[in-house]
Amino acid sequence: MSGEIAKTPQPPYYAVIFSSLRTEGDNGYGAMAARMEELAQQQPGFLGIESAREGLGLTVGYFRSLEDIAAWKRNVEHAEAQRRGRADWYSAYRVRIAKVEREYGFEK
Amino acid sequence: MSGEIAKTPQPPYYAVIFSSLRTEGDNGYGAMAARMEELAQQQPGFLGIESAREGLGLTVGYFRSLEDIAAWKRNVEHAEAQRRGRADWYSAYRVRIAKVEREYGFEK
Repeated sequence: MSGEIAKTPQPPYYAVIFSSLRTEGDNGYGAMAARMEELAQQQPGFLGIESAREGLGLTVGYFRSLEDIAAWKRNVEHAEAQRRGRADWYSAYRVRIAKVEREYGFEK
Repeated sequence: MSGEIAKTPQPPYYAVIFSSLRTEGDNGYGAMAARMEELAQQQPGFLGIESAREGLGLTVGYFRSLEDIAAWKRNVEHAEAQRRGRADWYSAYRVRIAKVEREYGFEK
């Protein structure tokens, strides 16, 4: 998974905040997560992705527009991963779609 | 840190997405992070917090309004933690302020 801070453009753009709790065992989850990250990066309007898991998993995907997010949600391979996610990989998740209005940061 | 998915109300509300990379060593970071999470929860308009670190750290704080976020940023103890963060704890961070427009989820 990504270990870097995403280099996003000037706002506004959109964030998909995906918060999840896993079930026990891998059951193909690791391979799927890597594949979904690869696939997301090929989507039109993809701007970046950040993720970490520490019990709770957080993944934030950044996209240019709501249309880009809707298209990614409908992607056939991603839709199948969503179905398997509910069946096998997640005990709970929450998706929040948000418009990034402001961004600032710091680098040593 | 929080190991649960935040129970937020119906959108719209706001998210502060804080993405960070740490410096080496603790230097008081762990105690500060726990204190800031406790303090955030006492802020007016606080709705929830989620965080995970796996190399990259992601913390998402949810608030009712932009005014609530601005007040939290100005909190004296938090402002001191921000200063120490730049001096000691983080090699880089990014703050994104976003309006949550839609939310959905799944629970087993």
